[in-house]
Amino acid sequence: MSTIDLNADLGESFGAWTMGDDPALLAIVSSANVACGFHAGDPARMLETVRVAAARGVAIGAHVSYPDLRGFGRRDLELPVADLIADVVYQIGALKGIAAAAGTRVRYVKPHGALYNRIVHDDEHASAVVDAIVAVDPALAIVGLADSEVASIADAEGLRFVPEAFADRAYRSDGSLVPRNQAGAVLHDAEEIAQRMLRLAAEGVVTAIDGTDIAVSAETICVHGDTRGAVDIARALRRRLESAGLTIASFSAR
Amino acid sequence: MSTIDLNADLGESFGAWTMGDDPALLAIVSSANVACGFHAGDPARMLETVRVAAARGVAIGAHVSYPDLRGFGRRDLELPVADLIADVVYQIGALKGIAAAAGTRVRYVKPHGALYNRIVHDDEHASAVVDAIVAVDPALAIVGLADSEVASIADAEGLRFVPEAFADRAYRSDGSLVPRNQAGAVLHDAEEIAQRMLRLAAEGVVTAIDGTDIAVSAETICVHGDTRGAVDIARALRRRLESAGLTIASFSAR
Amino acid sequence: MSTIDLNADLGESFGAWTMGDDPALLAIVSSANVACGFHAGDPARMLETVRVAAARGVAIGAHVSYPDLRGFGRRDLELPVADLIADVVYQIGALKGIAAAAGTRVRYVKPHGALYNRIVHDDEHASAVVDAIVAVDPALAIVGLADSEVASIADAEGLRFVPEAFADRAYRSDGSLVPRNQAGAVLHDAEEIAQRMLRLAAEGVVTAIDGTDIAVSAETICVHGDTRGAVDIARALRRRLESAGLTIASFSAR
Amino acid sequence: MSTIDLNADLGESFGAWTMGDDPALLAIVSSANVACGFHAGDPARMLETVRVAAARGVAIGAHVSYPDLRGFGRRDLELPVADLIADVVYQIGALKGIAAAAGTRVRYVKPHGALYNRIVHDDEHASAVVDAIVAVDPALAIVGLADSEVASIADAEGLRFVPEAFADRAYRSDGSLVPRNQAGAVLHDAEEIAQRMLRLAAEGVVTAIDGTDIAVSAETICVHGDTRGAVDIARALRRRLESAGLTIASFSAR
Repeated sequence: MSTIDLNADLGESFGAWTMGDDPALLAIVSSANVACGFHAGDPARMLETVRVAAARGVAIGAHVSYPDLRGFGRRDLELPVADLIADVVYQIGALKGIAAAAGTRVRYVKPHGALYNRIVHDDEHASAVVDAIVAVDPALAIVGLADSEVASIADAEGLRFVPEAFADRAYRSDGSLVPRNQAGAVLHDAEEIAQRMLRLAAEGVVTAIDGTDIAVSAETICVHGDTRGAVDIARALRRRLESAGLTIASFSAR
Repeated sequence: MSTIDLNADLGESFGAWTMGDDPALLAIVSSANVACGFHAGDPARMLETVRVAAARGVAIGAHVSYPDLRGFGRRDLELPVADLIADVVYQIGALKGIAAAAGTRVRYVKPHGALYNRIVHDDEHASAVVDAIVAVDPALAIVGLADSEVASIADAEGLRFVPEAFADRAYRSDGSLVPRNQAGAVLHDAEEIAQRMLRLAAEGVVTAIDGTDIAVSAETICVHGDTRGAVDIARALRRRLESAGLTIASFSAR
Repeated sequence: MSTIDLNADLGESFGAWTMGDDPALLAIVSSANVACGFHAGDPARMLETVRVAAARGVAIGAHVSYPDLRGFGRRDLELPVADLIADVVYQIGALKGIAAAAGTRVRYVKPHGALYNRIVHDDEHASAVVDAIVAVDPALAIVGLADSEVASIADAEGLRFVPEAFADRAYRSDGSLVPRNQAGAVLHDAEEIAQRMLRLAAEGVVTAIDGTDIAVSAETICVHGDTRGAVDIARALRRRLESAGLTIASFSAR
Repeated sequence: MSTIDLNADLGESFGAWTMGDDPALLAIVSSANVACGFHAGDPARMLETVRVAAARGVAIGAHVSYPDLRGFGRRDLELPVADLIADVVYQIGALKGIAAAAGTRVRYVKPHGALYNRIVHDDEHASAVVDAIVAVDPALAIVGLADSEVASIADAEGLRFVPEAFADRAYRSDGSLVPRNQAGAVLHDAEEIAQRMLRLAAEGVVTAIDGTDIAVSAETICVHGDTRGAVDIARALRRRLESAGLTIASFSAR
């Protein structure tokens, strides 16, 4: 693998509230997961972010969520399937409109927060998300956790599934992420993170928290930008990957 | 003119709250102004309405609004122009997504409520709406009041402008509507309404409240469906227009 | 027992959307569960409802909910406990403000929808609700399902717990309600309903769906008003209870 | 005058979004204008802020707003008077509930943003705000611009009116603020600001932007905390006022 994608969550400001450092991240990543107004983002902020992303050649993805602004989409919600489908369709459509107005287009969908975690194992909500994407535009891809429920369903429905790895997260030996509330779940050392992701890109292998090497397939690596330190880590990662001869480019270009 | 369009506001239910009789109206009109979630409508209700409209061959329009669910988009809001543009873009995009999922597409945009009234005279907000539509999809049309600010701006920007008349409203001799809070502003007699609209369709003339005949250009007639009586009036109007040999069809088919 | 309370959900309109027949119900019930803006209700509609209730001597209760306007508070939401406490406090306070402006006061709290059902068995959310009420005003009562988790916790914390029965719902032999999606869950015969509630008021006994008699303790009976038929049933129930010599009065007066 | 009040806007975070430095400001001011959920603030963040304020002996005020989360209450909204009254009542009540849960109480109301500016000259909205406050609790005070419409109406209705000055704003010779979009509208020099406010507190005089001295009556001085620099200026102002022998204390204690 001589090319890898870096993705990050963007457009998460809302009205008078700012979140994240979009300009900094848009100089680092090749794919931008843009909030669609359900957990964050409002139309004007979305349009600004998409314009800058387009100018920089960063691919645009719809970061779709349960409708939960106050909870930032992180709270599980018992949404009926018909509502979930329509909510995902609506969000993708809205971002497609924004993208058209910015002279670009949406390439993929990445579910956010509680929805992301739920469709790893819940086949009903996973099917709803896949159905929604296919219904709006079957040429879109979906980004999610490898070997998950949503991966199987996307494959079965002929929707391109793009597995992702997390740069700053520890893995368990079964390939799942160490939960955030456990010690060692989040990595903070830029050099260690870069080394791990280099090996992932080169060999498809990550060392799990118990010391064993595990296979992790990933076409895109998620980086964070919610703190100053996170942006620095992401920047350092990009430099190290490029120094090692890897090209940073959106999976959607392949 | 042997063809005329009937349009109505649809998809205005929200969550557990129902408004209007969408199934009845979708058997009467040729164009459906579908709420986009800013003054009414939620994704699931929008999708239901658009599916039925598509099945009946009713053209879909985006009924865009200021963001004001509690005020149903009827309250004037001092929205900065950049926000208004992005809001309109977002709503059109969202409905386009819904329409794609229903196997159809959006044909036009009709501003709603306070926004509709404002762009009759406010060139800044009128330009914002026209710019937003052109930015998303210049093949869309815009429905509005004839001889208004928005009509001129749409013409100047090469956006198709579709003038509309109101079936159940009285006109002043200058072509404007009699304000709702004045006596005689709203007509309730089905036969009188039908006669007026027949003459409008045939001659382009309506009798104003002061008894003078005035020219009113209209490619579409707005009917209401918020009460049982309103649906009956709309149904009677359609029958009378058809009896007179007129074809009821969306302006977007022309 | 010579006195019984009838309660109903009121103030559930929102902006331009009307729900239920508040004037009709306020002539029937002795306690009004008033929506507080989180699942339904907006300040102006709440104030109207509370004014009429006060004029009729109907006791005011805060119908508190998870924050979920689009789902009408019927969808389970994984709300952190600190958020749930603050949300309940906020809603009670808001209705207390509305009540003060109407020259009356709030007497009790009744959790709504998904929150009502959850605190029957979830001790964390049940404690949060009880703590919130005690924190704002320990003189309030809480209405809920008899023999539930929230009943025990309220008792333990010294908060008055008022058990309620449902006029139009079938019971299982363990005292729980037959789920709505099962046959026979909802009763529609006004005479049968009245007979059941008379026996409940007189003997504390209801016949379960399997034919066995079970003890059901209830200081208040919940009636519905979301359909014309439901209002008629509620009205008939009140008449029959009064004919049998019972006084209809708020539990809060005792 | 040997005592002066310093007030600041607080509790303006919302869900995952943080705004301002509440802990820093609560060590500086004597009155906290707490957002009530309509332009900012959510119940959990409000409760946190009120708890810290109570612990520090800072007086709590309800920072009421037009309902406009996305516009942060800064956009003018044509709200019908009945809706405005109910909205203000609701917000005050909600904060009273929060305050009760924190073991303290609300002392005053300060309208926010577009509402603040409007009631300087609009007697309809000014009356609505005053009526709402009196209806909920006539013992509250209202903070606003001296010599304004709302000041007269509060006086006429017997509601305590507390005039405020702005520490970092330039004044015109008629006593109004220099609009933000004009040069010199906002002051940035901590020493200059402190000197101006010392003179205001001692003599009731401020030098207007044209160099003339004007009388400005103020019982409270508004400081800002939205930037690091603003917090530093507020802290410096407090020190200088105290060094000059003034006591910083809430007007509500007098």
